[in-house]
Amino acid sequence: TRKYLHYANFLAQKRKRSNKNEKMSENGMMSRAKVLTIDTMNPTVKKVEYAVRGPIVARAVELERELSEGMKKPFSEVIKANIGDAHAMGQQPITFFRQVLALCSYPELLSDSTFPEDAKSRACSILNSCGGNSMGSYSPSQGIESVRQDVARYIERRDGGVPCDPDNIYLTTGASDGIVTMLKLLVCGEGATRAGVMISIPQYPLYSAALAELGAVQINYYLNEEKFWSLDISELQRALDEARLYCNPRALCIINPGNPTGQVQSRECIEDVIRFAAQERLFLMADEVYQDNVYAEGCQFHSFKKVLFEMGPEYSETVELASFHSTSKCYMGECGFRGGYMEIINMDDDVKAQLTKLLSVRLCPPVPGQALMDLVVNPPQPGEPSYERFIKERTATLSTLAEKAKLTEQVLNTVQGISCNPVQGAMYSFPRITIPEKAVKEDMGQQPDMFYCMKMLEETGICLVPGSGFGQREGTYHFRMTILPRTDKLKILLNKVQEFHLKFTQQYS
Amino acid sequence: TRKYLHYANFLAQKRKRSNKNEKMSENGMMSRAKVLTIDTMNPTVKKVEYAVRGPIVARAVELERELSEGMKKPFSEVIKANIGDAHAMGQQPITFFRQVLALCSYPELLSDSTFPEDAKSRACSILNSCGGNSMGSYSPSQGIESVRQDVARYIERRDGGVPCDPDNIYLTTGASDGIVTMLKLLVCGEGATRAGVMISIPQYPLYSAALAELGAVQINYYLNEEKFWSLDISELQRALDEARLYCNPRALCIINPGNPTGQVQSRECIEDVIRFAAQERLFLMADEVYQDNVYAEGCQFHSFKKVLFEMGPEYSETVELASFHSTSKCYMGECGFRGGYMEIINMDDDVKAQLTKLLSVRLCPPVPGQALMDLVVNPPQPGEPSYERFIKERTATLSTLAEKAKLTEQVLNTVQGISCNPVQGAMYSFPRITIPEKAVKEDMGQQPDMFYCMKMLEETGICLVPGSGFGQREGTYHFRMTILPRTDKLKILLNKVQEFHLKFTQQYS
Repeated sequence: TRKYLHYANFLAQKRKRSNKNEKMSENGMMSRAKVLTIDTMNPTVKKVEYAVRGPIVARAVELERELSEGMKKPFSEVIKANIGDAHAMGQQPITFFRQVLALCSYPELLSDSTFPEDAKSRACSILNSCGGNSMGSYSPSQGIESVRQDVARYIERRDGGVPCDPDNIYLTTGASDGIVTMLKLLVCGEGATRAGVMISIPQYPLYSAALAELGAVQINYYLNEEKFWSLDISELQRALDEARLYCNPRALCIINPGNPTGQVQSRECIEDVIRFAAQERLFLMADEVYQDNVYAEGCQFHSFKKVLFEMGPEYSETVELASFHSTSKCYMGECGFRGGYMEIINMDDDVKAQLTKLLSVRLCPPVPGQALMDLVVNPPQPGEPSYERFIKERTATLSTLAEKAKLTEQVLNTVQGISCNPVQGAMYSFPRITIPEKAVKEDMGQQPDMFYCMKMLEETGICLVPGSGFGQREGTYHFRMTILPRTDKLKILLNKVQEFHLKFTQQYS
Repeated sequence: TRKYLHYANFLAQKRKRSNKNEKMSENGMMSRAKVLTIDTMNPTVKKVEYAVRGPIVARAVELERELSEGMKKPFSEVIKANIGDAHAMGQQPITFFRQVLALCSYPELLSDSTFPEDAKSRACSILNSCGGNSMGSYSPSQGIESVRQDVARYIERRDGGVPCDPDNIYLTTGASDGIVTMLKLLVCGEGATRAGVMISIPQYPLYSAALAELGAVQINYYLNEEKFWSLDISELQRALDEARLYCNPRALCIINPGNPTGQVQSRECIEDVIRFAAQERLFLMADEVYQDNVYAEGCQFHSFKKVLFEMGPEYSETVELASFHSTSKCYMGECGFRGGYMEIINMDDDVKAQLTKLLSVRLCPPVPGQALMDLVVNPPQPGEPSYERFIKERTATLSTLAEKAKLTEQVLNTVQGISCNPVQGAMYSFPRITIPEKAVKEDMGQQPDMFYCMKMLEETGICLVPGSGFGQREGTYHFRMTILPRTDKLKILLNKVQEFHLKFTQQYS
């Protein structure tokens, strides 16, 4: 290894160099220009933005490192409230799910008497559906057949008996994978006939990122902050009419319950959206990953699929719909397993064949994630040994989330200059913040809410995502904060936000 | 559920309908044209082809179903030798890996005394690197830091001390994910300046599929079948010179050991390739997922990274290289977990920042796959309780594969009209087959080797992939067959192939 010492030293120096722009040149060998540079790389990739893991999170990670190296900071820990990462915030996994995953990973455990029988039988049935009885085998590209059947039965139960065909179920690598795949099918055209996709503002930035990368036109429709972030059909119509002048609108994306805005759509509103999509000939994409995360009284989750079918054959046999679910949210919060599914309704058979072909190139979604999805749609049933524990764990998680949703809204609304809509569902609050004129003017080259959040991070260790990363009406400012921290920590966090906001307001008034 | 009976019936009828072109029309509601049709969908998706899971596999799945329904066939089981799916073919997972995965999935097992101590300590260190000590948390988008460090140490050991910076390691969702991501960064330009990527013919069809989807130009260079599928620099030069007339060649992809062709590149040849890439300013992509699968005497795996660094700073500090590895192949064969990594060398810092940003949109690779990758690069060490069992299992798998590689070559070469190069490495044979003129002429709208393979499937139940799915010199025909079936089954399979080939030749002579 001696002969590489110079390179090892070089790497060490490179790591230390703080000036990013300094070029490697110690022996003059770097004169040959690179093949791949910022000027010659794929231009659409450069347009991609994803605030949830943007510069503010990079700085939070740096701060954590600095703290661990003993550097003095005005706080003792970084609290990452930027992302819906439940287990990282201390939420415990559902015991039954993890027992079955352990059994599937190491089937020798099937003879271990400490595992409950229902966990064992669930593991056996998953393994029987895997090639060679191993999670290490590829599954069909559309996903394991028995899992798709379980998903279909789950959807039928959820939707009060509306039939579901397992052929319409595609297992995915998290919901993101399904959403990007559907968008990929939809894009086409150039110039004034380029495909356009309607997304809510504020939105979850996966949508804008995927559209940028695919070169499609992003059509913004604004949610109504004054009415609990609800969706107005007149605003959809305005956005669509304007967009028709410069692109070919093809799809309408809805996130319900809302991310980052936490609203839960009424049944009536969903009907209106479906009618609008039918009339305007738009492919509907319903992001329903927070379907179990509904907290506010009087609110209830209605799936687009169910409403569509209750509207009768005029709609149920014509409107094209893809809906998305995931193992990452709800009460399980298993983000790391990257499990998910999509259901597609009324998709043209030839397009469906193309979809299946496209997915086959990537071979299959991760099998442990498929197994987990199977457990989510087919949890312990009454009478089975794990049922009570499962219900207890699920209920505890969901009711704690409901408390935290309420707490967050209440505390934030006590702060002058912060106003927060009820967190009816999902996992985030998206309060509006008043940023003093002086602060708006002071920062240059940075959005005022990015300036605000970055300052909060440096002073308090709290990592939030500025509203500009999700989109907001011009001149308004927000941040997104998860409600996931443990209740005691959430209280501290909310107090710190309060203190910071007051101080910031004073400083720039 | 009663009111949906008509839809349930409708679904049942739809499933039964054999005529694909029949349109849904029972109540006249289908008159409204679909938004998304084969004519209005993304045209680049339509160009994608992936033979490894193409029509022949779809037919194989159908045949399996027909068999299970009791239909008479000239065979009693379908043998899928189309894909490198080791566990599905009966290969057993490495015990240690699965123990650690079970412990990580269900950490209660850490107090179970039947698990070896090294498995427990490995599980603890993985869990300590996960947010909230749970595999259910998102990891950083680039992958868990400690896993990237372990990967870097593995590469340093493998490459005799060439240093590796964990900052250059990106964990991926299988190798495919890394390859597609790198290609995505490289594409740019329009018309005569459109990015071109050089790939071997025969190739693994992920490459052609990704290039089609990204709208890049595929530049074919042919491997030399007469010389054990080796790579000639003069052929690279020919292909490049021709391509420069109509596109902007930017990258050169190498698969070593070769898929589907099974050759192992000599050190000399790798040096030549690196010199060629440096001189012609091409970004090098080395697909090295079969790095442990080398069987032939006198053959040895040399990583592109190692050779690059042994060529001195003129190359090691300038040539841009991405190399790919995976948990799916070698002795572990854990395809379902979708684990992998890529190492990038000499990538421009700004481009690297763009790469990290792009990956963040998809959040992270599956954490169980990352954990598994960690175990592959950091297996039990001498002195640890699981060491002997690990070595025994690994050796058994690799030596069985070596036997099967030899057996496959030998048996196929006894058949008149089949000639098979040595399977020096990887997991496939890619023999050349003589197809009689009459058969070449008979089939219309189907490649002759597809006709041959489809007929073999119908008559013997053996599922192979025709050479046309990988590319081959015009007028030559091949098939790809994995060497993975259990030895006893492989013998039966090879005999059946032999019988079929003779019968086919007679029939069309």
